[in-house]
Amino acid sequence: MDKKIKYLDKIHSPQDLKKLDSSEYGGLAQEIRDVLIETVSKNGGHLASNLGAVELTIAIHLMFNSPSDRIVWDVGHQAYTHKLLTGRYDVFDTIRQKDGISGFCHPNESEHDTFYSGHSGTSVSSAYGIAQANKIKRNNNYTVAVIGDGSFTGGLVYEALNNAGRSKTNFIVILNDNEMSISKNVGSVAKYLTKIRSKKKYVRMKARLERFLDRIPLVGHAMAQGLFKFKTAVKNLIYESTIFEKMGFRYMGPIDGHDIGSMCEALETAKSLHSPVLLHVNTVKGKGYDYAEKDPSYFHGISDFDINTGEPHSTGDTFCNEFGKLMCKMAEKDRRISLITAAMSLGTGLTEFSNKYSERFFDVGIAEEHAVTFASGLAKGGMLPVFAVYSTFLQRCYDEIIHDGALQDQKLVLAIDRAGFVGDDGETHNGLYDVAFLQSIPKVTVYSPATYDEMKVDFGNAFYRDSDVVAVRYPRGGEANIPEDYTPSFGTYDIYGDEAAEIVLVTYGRLFSETAKAVRELEKRNIKAKVLKLNRIKPIDTEAIDRTLNSKYIFFFEEGVRSGGIAEKLAAELLQRGYKGGYDITAVEDCFVKQAKVPELIKDYGFDSESMVDKIVKKTTEV
Amino acid sequence: MDKKIKYLDKIHSPQDLKKLDSSEYGGLAQEIRDVLIETVSKNGGHLASNLGAVELTIAIHLMFNSPSDRIVWDVGHQAYTHKLLTGRYDVFDTIRQKDGISGFCHPNESEHDTFYSGHSGTSVSSAYGIAQANKIKRNNNYTVAVIGDGSFTGGLVYEALNNAGRSKTNFIVILNDNEMSISKNVGSVAKYLTKIRSKKKYVRMKARLERFLDRIPLVGHAMAQGLFKFKTAVKNLIYESTIFEKMGFRYMGPIDGHDIGSMCEALETAKSLHSPVLLHVNTVKGKGYDYAEKDPSYFHGISDFDINTGEPHSTGDTFCNEFGKLMCKMAEKDRRISLITAAMSLGTGLTEFSNKYSERFFDVGIAEEHAVTFASGLAKGGMLPVFAVYSTFLQRCYDEIIHDGALQDQKLVLAIDRAGFVGDDGETHNGLYDVAFLQSIPKVTVYSPATYDEMKVDFGNAFYRDSDVVAVRYPRGGEANIPEDYTPSFGTYDIYGDEAAEIVLVTYGRLFSETAKAVRELEKRNIKAKVLKLNRIKPIDTEAIDRTLNSKYIFFFEEGVRSGGIAEKLAAELLQRGYKGGYDITAVEDCFVKQAKVPELIKDYGFDSESMVDKIVKKTTEV
Repeated sequence: MDKKIKYLDKIHSPQDLKKLDSSEYGGLAQEIRDVLIETVSKNGGHLASNLGAVELTIAIHLMFNSPSDRIVWDVGHQAYTHKLLTGRYDVFDTIRQKDGISGFCHPNESEHDTFYSGHSGTSVSSAYGIAQANKIKRNNNYTVAVIGDGSFTGGLVYEALNNAGRSKTNFIVILNDNEMSISKNVGSVAKYLTKIRSKKKYVRMKARLERFLDRIPLVGHAMAQGLFKFKTAVKNLIYESTIFEKMGFRYMGPIDGHDIGSMCEALETAKSLHSPVLLHVNTVKGKGYDYAEKDPSYFHGISDFDINTGEPHSTGDTFCNEFGKLMCKMAEKDRRISLITAAMSLGTGLTEFSNKYSERFFDVGIAEEHAVTFASGLAKGGMLPVFAVYSTFLQRCYDEIIHDGALQDQKLVLAIDRAGFVGDDGETHNGLYDVAFLQSIPKVTVYSPATYDEMKVDFGNAFYRDSDVVAVRYPRGGEANIPEDYTPSFGTYDIYGDEAAEIVLVTYGRLFSETAKAVRELEKRNIKAKVLKLNRIKPIDTEAIDRTLNSKYIFFFEEGVRSGGIAEKLAAELLQRGYKGGYDITAVEDCFVKQAKVPELIKDYGFDSESMVDKIVKKTTEV
Repeated sequence: MDKKIKYLDKIHSPQDLKKLDSSEYGGLAQEIRDVLIETVSKNGGHLASNLGAVELTIAIHLMFNSPSDRIVWDVGHQAYTHKLLTGRYDVFDTIRQKDGISGFCHPNESEHDTFYSGHSGTSVSSAYGIAQANKIKRNNNYTVAVIGDGSFTGGLVYEALNNAGRSKTNFIVILNDNEMSISKNVGSVAKYLTKIRSKKKYVRMKARLERFLDRIPLVGHAMAQGLFKFKTAVKNLIYESTIFEKMGFRYMGPIDGHDIGSMCEALETAKSLHSPVLLHVNTVKGKGYDYAEKDPSYFHGISDFDINTGEPHSTGDTFCNEFGKLMCKMAEKDRRISLITAAMSLGTGLTEFSNKYSERFFDVGIAEEHAVTFASGLAKGGMLPVFAVYSTFLQRCYDEIIHDGALQDQKLVLAIDRAGFVGDDGETHNGLYDVAFLQSIPKVTVYSPATYDEMKVDFGNAFYRDSDVVAVRYPRGGEANIPEDYTPSFGTYDIYGDEAAEIVLVTYGRLFSETAKAVRELEKRNIKAKVLKLNRIKPIDTEAIDRTLNSKYIFFFEEGVRSGGIAEKLAAELLQRGYKGGYDITAVEDCFVKQAKVPELIKDYGFDSESMVDKIVKKTTEV
């Protein structure tokens, strides 16, 4: 592939880009697309969004001086071209790999990456903060937020627009409108954008009307008075005709986001206004790769795939798919069951459900807060709402789970996908906090199944046995190896191994597989151990605690943050009951977990059976 | 007072209200205002917002059939009239008292209270959930959300409007626009609403234009073609001229929110549309009580006051005021220090700061998520941002503290007011979760001062010693009694009492006072005890842990949730280090804490010195 490279190996910074002749931009864009497609086909990653933002990124780096001018990429899943143009072409093939560059923005990689990113809708807020700091410090640098239309379904963007509008700052928001964010875009704003977008005429008419009105003569006779009023009224309507203008932004657009010349011109104008500007740019998601243009949702975030066919290299059962099938089955029997997703119908396995039970399926946009509060209303109206969401995005609605969930004395089910390590997406996407933050909320029940069958039972309990907020959390990917001699009780906990053993490995969820392996390994070394496998992790069954009270040594393995997790909670319960044995916690300590394959992370954090055995042998022989 | 009552003692439900003659509405409204003013002057509570919503509430209950039609009050601090009209007049004098009725909506009080409430901006989401459930179940009941303009600065409302717009539901949102929410309303939307509001003319002109355009003849000659285009363009502009129309709502208003007749008419029309309607109502905050009309911010939420002068009965130093003074002092020396509030400049003690350092003061609206992410931008731009916020509202930005705070490798300071019990506001307002949820976040430092002096030192550390996210949390009200023989170290922890004592009381923040008293009381009974007072609660100083390792019995008193709190964390640390003594936790178990005075709550939850002594004597003699 390298032999074809003509531009990228010479571009080490935006300064180098500026040396190109404008006639070369087309060739550069093509080269970038080739690199994007080839690299993502190998490493997986975000493809469609990045293919859509190639020309836009070139135009931005031509017109601004990063890092004096600050570019803030929302989410970061459209920043690959930015990475290629800011000195990372030579390491681009390491993207999303262990020790490689991140699939999102990462300030420790480059001074051109302003913030670490990964969650949606933050760019306008954080960029506006920089713009205000510049204003206070009396410097005239520009701050640019680049944000997709999908993020406009999230409330954070409005909070920021509301705050930033009419401020006297050099602040430019570029709305990269590709007509769909992750899933097909939903809600009124999407429809509204479609309307603006499809109406070049409308915008042109607006300009024409202004000219027409300017030509109406206004002095001299009585009719002029009426006309003046008419003119003022129409002008008011025209002047603030977009939502963005009403929020205090100058609105420009929509312009073609694949036309570098037009964009440079528009950006030049935007810079000259010295006040908040919203520049509306139309792009095609997946641009330049047929398969991605045809199915941009699928190619939004993708694993490695065959470049010639667009087919993924590997598929298989996953908790996610099993969840989707289960919901269809349960919803057939119970007409109250309703599913809610925050723009992740594909990602949470709900495509079939959304087709089969469209009336009971709600894609609310990238709006996790609203999802929970809306679910609370559905419950009040007699439905049985399930919010299917990635663990990392559930963080967005901590307060809503308290205020509109647990406090309301009604059933609300959380289906938490991607709980635990997620792998390649890195720091911003690991599902390591849900257990700790859900633990702190009264009246919440949490299950952590290790198998599909257990997951089914857990949702049954969630729907028909437990009350208030019930969460079922399951990992990315499929079942780990479950020992053949394991007979699940489908109760709140299981004991695996020699009941009499005085060494206990406690865990929940995916790690059961590794602890079971460790027990068998320890047996070979004549160390008797058993696993206490928690199925319901909040509340912990007191019987399970009592049954470990006389242990000699307890080892807790928790694929989540240590602080506020179940291992700490169990310690407190044991200590308060007079436990005198040894206790050791293996969990994710106070840090952010970087990208790597899940098995690599399992090993790095001491969660593989080998590390477990080493630790247990060492600690128990120490005593 | 009761002798004057003519209507309220006969109104036990909205049905009774409907029996009144319309000529009696004015008298009823006056009577309600008298009751509101008198009751709040005694019990404290939300006054200005409630005075503004009297006629609006009467109109709503006249036009809808609660609870078949569901009324959802946003926040609930404008629902006092609703309480009076739904059978709670006879217990209204117990409002906000222990075992009395709540100052917010509370479904266990009345079937007419749809949700427990207290946090802002949830009503549109939850009401829309009910509207969708009604649609699925094919019933034609109406769902009404009543929401103030202040809540429109929060993103949740936009997420909900975006989701609800264009849905085919019987859904009515009443925007109660009193031109200021808690503090003076801020941001572009506020300015925008002012614009609509001040332009009856504008709205009238819109209607006139429509008629004018309708009269333009369109057939017959060439010019007609041009005129047709012109007409269509203007009509498009007119038709969707408000933000709400762009979000897919029918917009009606603004109408006078103190004119019951007009409102009933408008609601009748709204009901007939069978699609989402936004009815814009103008009200005067504080209406009918001069002092409140003049200073509605002050009379938003207030303690008991003198009805004739409007003066509060009690004032005094508080952590809140001391914080405000401290920030002014520190900001004078350090020009980077910037303060952010989410519509709580008065409530967080920042009035003086906002006047003195207006360029570095940001009221972002009721938008806690944006506040943190915006702060992240200020920090990136070289400022030293402090977000001052009540503990309960900080819950709104858990994800932002992770993603835009801790992850970003830069300083961000959280000043957490109202940490711990808050008293009269009840379940939705207690600051019991911040410690647990902040604990789960990597790279966060948390201080919990017991005195003003300690708070000053803690902010010094936050600004100039610690890195990343640093939180300083302090209670509502002032310093508790601090023993005279206590000499603060201003370090990460203090030991109070006999160093050699084997019984240790561990605590932090306000409860230090009670633990110190308990130690002195125990001494009288010949039980030697000491207090381990944690100043920095995250991370706990390992030295502090080591110094308690040989204790006989440790009692942790934590004014916050047990689950995920510091007491559990300390237990795990001790156990992992081989601690063999007794351990006991007194904290808030899995429940929501109801309204009562703070001292009552301290006692009820076993945090007073007497309860401490009882428990310690019992437990230690048991052993």
